[in-house]
Amino acid sequence: MTNKKEINAGIIIIGNEVLSGRTKDLNTSTLSKWLNLIGIKVEEVRTIPDIEESIIKNVNEFRKRFDYVFTSGGIGPTHDDITAKSISKTFNLKYEIHKEAFKILEKYYGAEEFNEGRQKMVWMPSNANLILNPSSGAPGFSVENVFSLPGVPLILESMLPNITNKLVGGDPILSKTISLKTIESEIAKPLMIVQEKNKDVDIGSYPFFRKGEIGVSIVIRGINKSKIHDCSQQILDFVKDKNIVIVERD
Amino acid sequence: MTNKKEINAGIIIIGNEVLSGRTKDLNTSTLSKWLNLIGIKVEEVRTIPDIEESIIKNVNEFRKRFDYVFTSGGIGPTHDDITAKSISKTFNLKYEIHKEAFKILEKYYGAEEFNEGRQKMVWMPSNANLILNPSSGAPGFSVENVFSLPGVPLILESMLPNITNKLVGGDPILSKTISLKTIESEIAKPLMIVQEKNKDVDIGSYPFFRKGEIGVSIVIRGINKSKIHDCSQQILDFVKDKNIVIVERD
Repeated sequence: MTNKKEINAGIIIIGNEVLSGRTKDLNTSTLSKWLNLIGIKVEEVRTIPDIEESIIKNVNEFRKRFDYVFTSGGIGPTHDDITAKSISKTFNLKYEIHKEAFKILEKYYGAEEFNEGRQKMVWMPSNANLILNPSSGAPGFSVENVFSLPGVPLILESMLPNITNKLVGGDPILSKTISLKTIESEIAKPLMIVQEKNKDVDIGSYPFFRKGEIGVSIVIRGINKSKIHDCSQQILDFVKDKNIVIVERD
Repeated sequence: MTNKKEINAGIIIIGNEVLSGRTKDLNTSTLSKWLNLIGIKVEEVRTIPDIEESIIKNVNEFRKRFDYVFTSGGIGPTHDDITAKSISKTFNLKYEIHKEAFKILEKYYGAEEFNEGRQKMVWMPSNANLILNPSSGAPGFSVENVFSLPGVPLILESMLPNITNKLVGGDPILSKTISLKTIESEIAKPLMIVQEKNKDVDIGSYPFFRKGEIGVSIVIRGINKSKIHDCSQQILDFVKDKNIVIVERD
C-alpha cells in the first residue's frame, strides 16, 4: 500500500468458551479499532483452546511473524487460567511471584482478603512488565512484544490506555464508508475498476440488512487521506450514473 | 476425554472487515453451537485477510489437521470475494462455471437479471458439491472436507441444515452451566479439586457482569451425561458449604 513500513499485529484469543460457541468474541473488534488509531494493522486472529502446548506454539509463531502480539483470556485465578504459565515457558522464563503485582493486589484486596486463589494472579513470567488494570486490580503483563490481557471485554478495554504509549505505530489507518441502497452484483464491475485504478487503498464491499432493507456498505481503507478521498469520488461518480440511492456516508 | 474418536473441525473466517474491527464475528458462535449438536468439536478458529496466498496456506493446513473445515466469507460477486478461486488453487482444481449453480441462479434471478456480476457467483472449483442457499440464492460449495459458506450471518445460518447430513459426528457435546453470585478467587481452589477428580469433563470458569451484579458461570462440558451430573453435584456441594448463592442453573 505504501513505501513506509507497515506495523502489524496478531491477536490470540485463548478460550474454550469462544470455541464452544458459548461466548462471542468482542475483544478482536476492540483491539483492532484501538490498534488502527495507533497505526497498527491486525493481520491475523487465532482462537485457540486452553491448552499449554497450543498457547506456546501459537505465541511463538506470532511473536516472530508480527511486530506485536496480543493475547486475551486465561489470566484469572482458576484452574483453566494458564496463560501466564504458558507464556513463561514460551520465553523460557521462570514462572514466579511478581513482587510489584503482589503489592498492587495486596493493597487492592487488603492483606486479609488476599487469599490463595487471588495470589495465583501474581504468578507471572520473571520480570514481566505489568499492564495496570483500573477495573479489577489484577494486572496483565508483557514480555518483549507479547501483551497478555484478560478475556472479560470491559476489563480488557479499560487496560488499553495503559499500553498505548508502549507501542510504536505507523500512520493511522483511515477509512471511509459509503452505504448504498443496492445489491453487490449491481456494483461489482464498476467497483472492481475503481479498485484497479486505486491500488493504494483497499476497497471492501459488505452487504447489510437494516430495518428490513438490504444494502451494501463500501469501505475504503488506507493511510493517505487524499487517496481515500479520490477513490471515494470515483465511487460516488458511478453511484450517480447508476441512480443508486446513498443511505449513509461518513 | 474418552476412548471414542473425537471428531473435530477448524473454522477460517475470511474477512478484512473482521480484522479491521468494523464487524464482529458472529459466525464462529453459530457454527460451533451447531457442530456441538452433531458431535463435532471446534479446535481452532482463524481470522485471515482477503489474500489468496493466505487462504490457500491456511485451508491447506486445516484440511490436513481437522476432520472438517468451514470457511466463512468471500463468496459474493465483488472483487474482494476470492474464496472460490483460492479454494480451487488449494485443491489444484479448475476454477470454472458450475453448471448446476448456473441453472439455480438463472432461475432465481430470471435470465434477464442474471448479469455479469451475479454470474461471478457460479464460478467454483471444478465439480464442487453445492450447498444450497434458501435465503439469497447463491450456493456455497464443498470440496472434500472443506465447506465454504458466505460471511453474512443470517445467510450462513440458513444454509447449515443443508450440510448436516453430509457430516459424520461423534457423540454430541453436552454442557451444564451453574451461575453463582461469587468471584473466581473464592472458588478457584475447590473448583480445581473437582476438575482433578473429574478428568472426563472440562470445567470452565467465566466471570460475568449482569444487571449491575458480578458473578461467575461454571460450565461443565463433556459427552457423558452422568459424568457431567456427578461433577455438577460435587460443585453444588462446595457451593452449599461456602453459602454461595446460585443465580441460575440449567
